Amino acid sequence: MTDLFHLETPSVDALKFMMDAAIELEMEREPSDFLDKVLHYSRDIVGARAGSLYLVDGDELSFLACQNDDLDISQFITVNTEQPHKIARTEKSIAGYASLHGEPLMIQDAHHIDNSAPYSFDPAIDKKSGFHTQTILAMPLRHPKEGVIGVMELINLQIKDTHHWSIGLVRHFAMLSASSIVNLQMEKSLEAAYLETIFRLGVASEYKDDDTYAHVQRIRYTSRIIANEMGCSLHEQQAIFHASAMHDLGKIGIPDNILNKPAHLEADEWEIMKNHATMGAEILKDSDAELLQLCATIAVGHHEHWDGNGYPNGLAGAEIPLEARIVAVADVFDALVNQRAYKKAWPIEDALALIEGESGSHFDPAVVEAFLNRIKEVKQVQQRFLVTT
Amino acid sequence: MTDLFHLETPSVDALKFMMDAAIELEMEREPSDFLDKVLHYSRDIVGARAGSLYLVDGDELSFLACQNDDLDISQFITVNTEQPHKIARTEKSIAGYASLHGEPLMIQDAHHIDNSAPYSFDPAIDKKSGFHTQTILAMPLRHPKEGVIGVMELINLQIKDTHHWSIGLVRHFAMLSASSIVNLQMEKSLEAAYLETIFRLGVASEYKDDDTYAHVQRIRYTSRIIANEMGCSLHEQQAIFHASAMHDLGKIGIPDNILNKPAHLEADEWEIMKNHATMGAEILKDSDAELLQLCATIAVGHHEHWDGNGYPNGLAGAEIPLEARIVAVADVFDALVNQRAYKKAWPIEDALALIEGESGSHFDPAVVEAFLNRIKEVKQVQQRFLVTT
Repeated sequence: MTDLFHLETPSVDALKFMMDAAIELEMEREPSDFLDKVLHYSRDIVGARAGSLYLVDGDELSFLACQNDDLDISQFITVNTEQPHKIARTEKSIAGYASLHGEPLMIQDAHHIDNSAPYSFDPAIDKKSGFHTQTILAMPLRHPKEGVIGVMELINLQIKDTHHWSIGLVRHFAMLSASSIVNLQMEKSLEAAYLETIFRLGVASEYKDDDTYAHVQRIRYTSRIIANEMGCSLHEQQAIFHASAMHDLGKIGIPDNILNKPAHLEADEWEIMKNHATMGAEILKDSDAELLQLCATIAVGHHEHWDGNGYPNGLAGAEIPLEARIVAVADVFDALVNQRAYKKAWPIEDALALIEGESGSHFDPAVVEAFLNRIKEVKQVQQRFLVTT
Repeated sequence: MTDLFHLETPSVDALKFMMDAAIELEMEREPSDFLDKVLHYSRDIVGARAGSLYLVDGDELSFLACQNDDLDISQFITVNTEQPHKIARTEKSIAGYASLHGEPLMIQDAHHIDNSAPYSFDPAIDKKSGFHTQTILAMPLRHPKEGVIGVMELINLQIKDTHHWSIGLVRHFAMLSASSIVNLQMEKSLEAAYLETIFRLGVASEYKDDDTYAHVQRIRYTSRIIANEMGCSLHEQQAIFHASAMHDLGKIGIPDNILNKPAHLEADEWEIMKNHATMGAEILKDSDAELLQLCATIAVGHHEHWDGNGYPNGLAGAEIPLEARIVAVADVFDALVNQRAYKKAWPIEDALALIEGESGSHFDPAVVEAFLNRIKEVKQVQQRFLVTT
């Protein structure tokens, strides 16, 4: 691989390698894998045996990737991308210096850095691992608009001449990476805002009900546990997690005196109450967004019964979308074991008996089985999100 | 530029050019400019005088970019990216053939294509423009997972040998472009789903009110017109357009008998009604998402008065966020000129007189001035979104 870049002139293969690297970055949407790839390709360009990657986080640098071809680093270093190790972003560290000045910094010998330099290398790192750090290229990840968003340290390079064209190329690649990282971060925060809005809409729709935030959370987590047990894909599990929040959206349209009646509903009131399934789907209808379509599916379908005796459409068996069958079990269980305006909280064992008893009539037997298999986790969800009112 | 790629071996500058092209694509978030850049860079690699770009849309190809260095094409061809011209995706056209087979197709002379080929070139195109089409390279935009998502036609190339390395490079570049296009499309549909969810939440919050969809639309458009007149940036105008939909979100928490009372509210009822401003902000509080923060700001602030006599916090003047001051005018005007449970629709002139009269007391004078300056467009909004109940 290294030969592609270290010849006097680049080869056609080097061009194709760079394009492939760019395509790989474009295809990778998982942030931690993305940063690993950035580091890997950058190391390839200059033939570096090891490397680390940090992202700027205020006046700190978050340690997010680490690679070493000569060492099993997992014995010495743990990279935790959820709660990353952080170092101060100051001139005292090599990475900090490069990130603050925004220019690449080449260290020819980490163990003999001139005393006049503001930065230094801690020899304890090598002592601990047995690795010998010699050259370090600290390359800022500079975004054309956002400025320096991170820094890579490439260690023990084949190329030591800072004027070699492959150093210029890694600089270009670092800039491409910075642009891609900023786009990926934007995409992730847009996605988070979208999912948060769906959750808040779900909570808001329960605003006048007995408990709101906690009920929606319990439905989301319980539905996801069942979906997981039933072998749904990760994508499907996440979709049902988010979309189940909106199952009672239509309650927005139900009159207060029926919604909050502190007793069982009369037959005519019950007819009005049943409209909430259709109204929820009405609010969400005709959306192009896959997740909002699923929200509508769950809203309209979560009171259908396996035997066809549910509402609003009297669907039966597999005519009822799986996600609605799953939320049906999660929702009834949650309503039973928690207090409502018209009833006390049931003991969990009584609720389980009812759900088992209605397997095959009210509920899909396969969903009930999955639910019971994972009842330990379902109980933990109940403990985690207690009634908030 | 062309020399970079057409030498026997590539130069370092060619590598840097490719990296720069990749960065440019990564930085460009406007879809039509993005496609123009894809075409431009691809043409540079093979020294093509002209080119077109199509994206696959079911069994059609949408014509989305067109460039010609030798001709002012605007006289002959219009590219409409909103409602693009479409051609059938069949083997009869060169672009269609390449997109269906997923392999580059090189035509040495467009005017002398072998009769046995399923595709042909229409000489009327050249006749009309006076351009002479000779070589055509039809390059599929192939995504590693999604397959062929589009096709580029590069016309009158400097490189005619299909085995030349720069043809291979343009193929790589087309693959990078395909990945970027798919990501950009995903980002745009995620954004659309997010904004749609906010709008639906706004409409849902008015579900029990007299008119819902139409009222929310009128507030959005009127607020944006005012923001535009006041010199807000395009980003700010779009933010207020979307966030204003949620101004009455807190109505979800107001009892029906107060919300829909067919008469003016008693003092104690009015106190409860006023809670809707705080409740709206409560539902949306502590969000990291900039747009949801603005939703909360507008929800809590749109009943404050310029003179400090509004609610819930009695803020005055510039203490009230501009967006809330803008929605205040849009909302009061809309409530006046439309029928409500407790009142008839006012004539527009009476509503304008009230708003002018309360400039400096209820309303920010600068907002009132902007609103009046653009009253013609505000009236058009009223016409466009009539009461839907």
